Amino acid sequence: MSGMGKIPVAVLGATGSVGQRMVALLERHPWFRLGSVTASDRSAERAYGEAARWVLPTPMPEEAAGMEVRATGPALEEAVLFSALDASVAGSIETDYASRGHCVVSNARNHRMDPQVPLLVPEVNPDHLDLVAGQSFGGGAIITNPNCSTIGLALALAPLHDAFGVERIHVVTLQAISGAGIPGVSSLQIIDNVVPFIPGEEERIETEPLKILGQLEDGGITPASITVSAQCNRVPVVDGHTLCVSVTLGREASAEAILGAWESFRGEPTALGLPSAPPRPIVYVDEPDHPQPRIHRDLGNGMSAAVGRLRPCPLLGWKFVTTSHNTVRGAAGGALLCAELAVARRAVVGLRDFDGHAGAAPAN
Amino acid sequence: MSGMGKIPVAVLGATGSVGQRMVALLERHPWFRLGSVTASDRSAERAYGEAARWVLPTPMPEEAAGMEVRATGPALEEAVLFSALDASVAGSIETDYASRGHCVVSNARNHRMDPQVPLLVPEVNPDHLDLVAGQSFGGGAIITNPNCSTIGLALALAPLHDAFGVERIHVVTLQAISGAGIPGVSSLQIIDNVVPFIPGEEERIETEPLKILGQLEDGGITPASITVSAQCNRVPVVDGHTLCVSVTLGREASAEAILGAWESFRGEPTALGLPSAPPRPIVYVDEPDHPQPRIHRDLGNGMSAAVGRLRPCPLLGWKFVTTSHNTVRGAAGGALLCAELAVARRAVVGLRDFDGHAGAAPAN
Amino acid sequence: MSGMGKIPVAVLGATGSVGQRMVALLERHPWFRLGSVTASDRSAERAYGEAARWVLPTPMPEEAAGMEVRATGPALEEAVLFSALDASVAGSIETDYASRGHCVVSNARNHRMDPQVPLLVPEVNPDHLDLVAGQSFGGGAIITNPNCSTIGLALALAPLHDAFGVERIHVVTLQAISGAGIPGVSSLQIIDNVVPFIPGEEERIETEPLKILGQLEDGGITPASITVSAQCNRVPVVDGHTLCVSVTLGREASAEAILGAWESFRGEPTALGLPSAPPRPIVYVDEPDHPQPRIHRDLGNGMSAAVGRLRPCPLLGWKFVTTSHNTVRGAAGGALLCAELAVARRAVVGLRDFDGHAGAAPAN
Amino acid sequence: MSGMGKIPVAVLGATGSVGQRMVALLERHPWFRLGSVTASDRSAERAYGEAARWVLPTPMPEEAAGMEVRATGPALEEAVLFSALDASVAGSIETDYASRGHCVVSNARNHRMDPQVPLLVPEVNPDHLDLVAGQSFGGGAIITNPNCSTIGLALALAPLHDAFGVERIHVVTLQAISGAGIPGVSSLQIIDNVVPFIPGEEERIETEPLKILGQLEDGGITPASITVSAQCNRVPVVDGHTLCVSVTLGREASAEAILGAWESFRGEPTALGLPSAPPRPIVYVDEPDHPQPRIHRDLGNGMSAAVGRLRPCPLLGWKFVTTSHNTVRGAAGGALLCAELAVARRAVVGLRDFDGHAGAAPAN
Repeated sequence: MSGMGKIPVAVLGATGSVGQRMVALLERHPWFRLGSVTASDRSAERAYGEAARWVLPTPMPEEAAGMEVRATGPALEEAVLFSALDASVAGSIETDYASRGHCVVSNARNHRMDPQVPLLVPEVNPDHLDLVAGQSFGGGAIITNPNCSTIGLALALAPLHDAFGVERIHVVTLQAISGAGIPGVSSLQIIDNVVPFIPGEEERIETEPLKILGQLEDGGITPASITVSAQCNRVPVVDGHTLCVSVTLGREASAEAILGAWESFRGEPTALGLPSAPPRPIVYVDEPDHPQPRIHRDLGNGMSAAVGRLRPCPLLGWKFVTTSHNTVRGAAGGALLCAELAVARRAVVGLRDFDGHAGAAPAN
Repeated sequence: MSGMGKIPVAVLGATGSVGQRMVALLERHPWFRLGSVTASDRSAERAYGEAARWVLPTPMPEEAAGMEVRATGPALEEAVLFSALDASVAGSIETDYASRGHCVVSNARNHRMDPQVPLLVPEVNPDHLDLVAGQSFGGGAIITNPNCSTIGLALALAPLHDAFGVERIHVVTLQAISGAGIPGVSSLQIIDNVVPFIPGEEERIETEPLKILGQLEDGGITPASITVSAQCNRVPVVDGHTLCVSVTLGREASAEAILGAWESFRGEPTALGLPSAPPRPIVYVDEPDHPQPRIHRDLGNGMSAAVGRLRPCPLLGWKFVTTSHNTVRGAAGGALLCAELAVARRAVVGLRDFDGHAGAAPAN
Repeated sequence: MSGMGKIPVAVLGATGSVGQRMVALLERHPWFRLGSVTASDRSAERAYGEAARWVLPTPMPEEAAGMEVRATGPALEEAVLFSALDASVAGSIETDYASRGHCVVSNARNHRMDPQVPLLVPEVNPDHLDLVAGQSFGGGAIITNPNCSTIGLALALAPLHDAFGVERIHVVTLQAISGAGIPGVSSLQIIDNVVPFIPGEEERIETEPLKILGQLEDGGITPASITVSAQCNRVPVVDGHTLCVSVTLGREASAEAILGAWESFRGEPTALGLPSAPPRPIVYVDEPDHPQPRIHRDLGNGMSAAVGRLRPCPLLGWKFVTTSHNTVRGAAGGALLCAELAVARRAVVGLRDFDGHAGAAPAN
Repeated sequence: MSGMGKIPVAVLGATGSVGQRMVALLERHPWFRLGSVTASDRSAERAYGEAARWVLPTPMPEEAAGMEVRATGPALEEAVLFSALDASVAGSIETDYASRGHCVVSNARNHRMDPQVPLLVPEVNPDHLDLVAGQSFGGGAIITNPNCSTIGLALALAPLHDAFGVERIHVVTLQAISGAGIPGVSSLQIIDNVVPFIPGEEERIETEPLKILGQLEDGGITPASITVSAQCNRVPVVDGHTLCVSVTLGREASAEAILGAWESFRGEPTALGLPSAPPRPIVYVDEPDHPQPRIHRDLGNGMSAAVGRLRPCPLLGWKFVTTSHNTVRGAAGGALLCAELAVARRAVVGLRDFDGHAGAAPAN
């Protein structure tokens, strides 16, 4: 029987666009079994198939469609809760669930900068998961997934930071509409248009990479010494954020050395063979006009970042472009990978003791 | 009779998208009268209304529709030739027409960096027109209009350069499809997509502003000492280029001082009341998510640059966003304004002697 | 002083997209002067410039920007109220204002099929205004503007109905997003997509033309005997509805006769020279791939319907395509023209007695 | 070893958008092995990875990328040639290859209406393959795939034609840009726009369904007695044609009966388990605003037609909407399914004798 022995999980805020992606990615997941979907009281007790206005290009999983939506907040049985909650409510709900013993893996921003919470890009800072051991949420845990633009940026920069040190980052984003959720951006605002502003986004991109690329020391994270300047734009693209990056490295680096750093980069999730890990987290694409969101967002099942156009920047040293799937790599898939890493590393007590995953997770 | 006493002009390459804009803008122009339209041999001798695949949102001017298209190259009678020729052929054709005594005002890039040719943004460097007196093209003249992205950038930076000195510019463009002409960008390439590359564009943006903001000295232009880094993207927008700019100024400047420099900026065309001059070349827009191409591209009949989102840049000093109409301000309308300035300044011998414009141009 | 002697008008629901169009079109109107803008209580007492999230491609009129938004419902002083209210509230509010003596010209659907209310396309059924004399709303009047798709359809069919009789209409619409207002259609629903359904729209298109093309007899409208079948689609177009129409005529008609009927059509508003009347309400466009919304929506300042591609229909007789601007001709501009006709025809008692318009309206 | 025992195939015109889809779909095909790709002389002898400007959202198959492109025309060794040639050259080239013994499965329109050539929708008229036995092209065969819009229409109507007889069809299409190939539709023509005309398309849709739904009698096809009226529009959608259909049936049919006919429809390819056959060729979708191209084009790996919105048509009887993937089901995937059916039915002598497919094709 399918699902036997898998770790039961729930998706909080399952009717939104990130929640839908989580539900879709959990179908036939080898380790996790979707046990509950929650939404606001308005949707509760309706069938998920009716409550969710499905926006993904693949059909809604049939099993999920038949589930009764539960209200977010009351008790749940699942060990892992994937949170796709809106930031306006996510903070206290997530803390509350963690205090009741759940492992909350959140895509919301509320706990990202909390010193005791890992802000995790599994290929980049897997050791930050050790923070969980010191968390004081009660029996549970909170793990957060960074902002959708930050993830692609962190992935592209991590190998450079390791090899040469990153000192200054200038990034201009061209972000897809799916990042704004449902209803999100009005079509009247964005068709034949660019909106050069996304509330709070520039601040997040100027802050989160410092924690992600920071060092775990004495049970806390010492942020990286990097100055980031971000300008964020919404463009009429469905999925896939594109980032124009200029970067100053700490040490001299040739183009070949940079390309080599990207090409050899794999990370722990790929080494461990985690179910959602792409074969290559970073794929350098050679065409002069690549990467492009429509062509590259689905690389590695949407979990790889495409990088291209490396060339000198007269001001900052090097410049390049990176594209990644904002609701897969940048949200639902990224959160899933965080949970997989937590299971594989036995980082969360509650999951360590769980019987079901014994055979599911790779022996390590 | 309409057109009596006006300066006769021709549009070279009139069937393309920039040529169409020129034809449209010349309808009912108070100083100029469209006498001929030219195109490649393939279109020659057909009616313009049939030869041009009209793409503008306003109907083709009826008088133009009835004109017989002439081949580009053979003799023309008009005093001023607006060139919307493709760069692959523009260079020698323009030189040739100039040597036959015409005043060529060109949107093509071929002669832009020629030391004896002004690269003109009439509000920014009107004195560069003095170069024309020293030109050796025969009896005629060549005046060039900068790249469509450069114009908006130069407009936004000129008041800052005057007041504080500009030292470093980092610019990422989100450019409209109309800039690529007809057929230009395939819809299959750009719908639901971003193309992070426009051939030669970054080089032009990194070069042209130095000449435009340079000093006329000893009959030549000393380029400004500015380092520019550009990254260019094509986005699914019909008209209107949006630029995300970071800038380092030579002197300390407060936000108020910068805003003041923009708000007080007028320039010679507006002072002279040139027909195509906008009331305000730069319009600062206050909404947090402005400027936007669809909302602001038609400001000042498409001749103003909208600027917004001024804020500190952690890396370079200040950052802001500017949007302007790429085929009006950035091409056809810009070229028209160049010609108007040349007439008003009596910069071109051939036009100075022309009887017709006596009453048309403002006394000065 | 501007506005002296003009008829004072208010826009109800002025912050929405149709309300914004009304505000924009009323700027510098020769007969009307915008006195008040209203919106829901949430926006009341804020400056219009702040309360309205402006989505039009032209800047907000400065005078309107400074107006304080009033709550919809309480007493207003203006003689004419243009209603851009949402259908969920428009019905009783409009009745109430009419009962207080106002002339309400509404774009909402609530009163359209009311037997005592004219459903007016001023070029098509100007005599239906006579219904106003028999209205029992108190001292005031209610005049309605049809559905945005119906207007273009009625315009294109009226000359054919007059000349040959229309018996059957099959229409498939490709409707712009602006018709759905703000926030309206989510970008995530419509970019790279078609939504083949607009709630209630097919029913309206299958009903309203019968009233519009009906006969005024004995103080009431006898609907035309026409069978209409409509299929409605939303497409990623900002402005301009396109209709693919097949039609069965009551009498034999050649293509020439049909073209002639369209080309000679003018209508009372053009004959009277009403301020918003286009020179030609119907413009036949000859190119094989015309009409197109982006090219033709602004014909006649957005008040003309473009018609093209007339050809035999193997099933129903003839087929053609028509495009018109849904928020100008199909909403705000259409309502304005209704009011102008009511003034010119002296159809509304309250306006007849109004001092201010004496010199404004044409003597008739 | 992969490819052992598979039938060698070539793609003619492999660099275009349909050719690219064919190359992509042939990767890992269980029966066919891509042996050659051809293109015009201009691309010949270049690596396919360089010659093809890849536009699909999945990466180019690596094996294909390394192939040397061959010129179209000269001798090829492969038994089956999938033709994605342009109609301007396809006719004689396909005849020529067939006369040299190849089985040509063509997506081009040139041979579609040839009386001896099956116009095949494998679920709809598999018996039309018997025409091949009577073909006089030499030792080879020509099989054609219908127009991209016709396929979806034929699929949706086939079960109704079987059950109730179809007499009249009124169809308005909203077609994706990918159908026009590369470069195809200029972005300047279609963004924020609709183009209500596709050359030759209406004629094809008014003709092809009659042959497809016709009867094989006395070695020829007697076309179905159906009158079709088509209106074709291009809309800014990347993939997926949407059709608004009104239909008159020969016999009374309830909505339930129609839904039942669709839901029980399977067809021979699904019964035979052909590799490209979808589980259900027709999927009725219940949401009031479905089907939609972005949501449903990938149903059944792009091989299913989604149907929805069945409701009475006041003029013709019933109306509904259908969406299908124009370059998969409507072109490359459809052609592949035709070839699979030809193999499975042993309809083509050359393939019947081929050793390699013995174990590949299902026993039958």
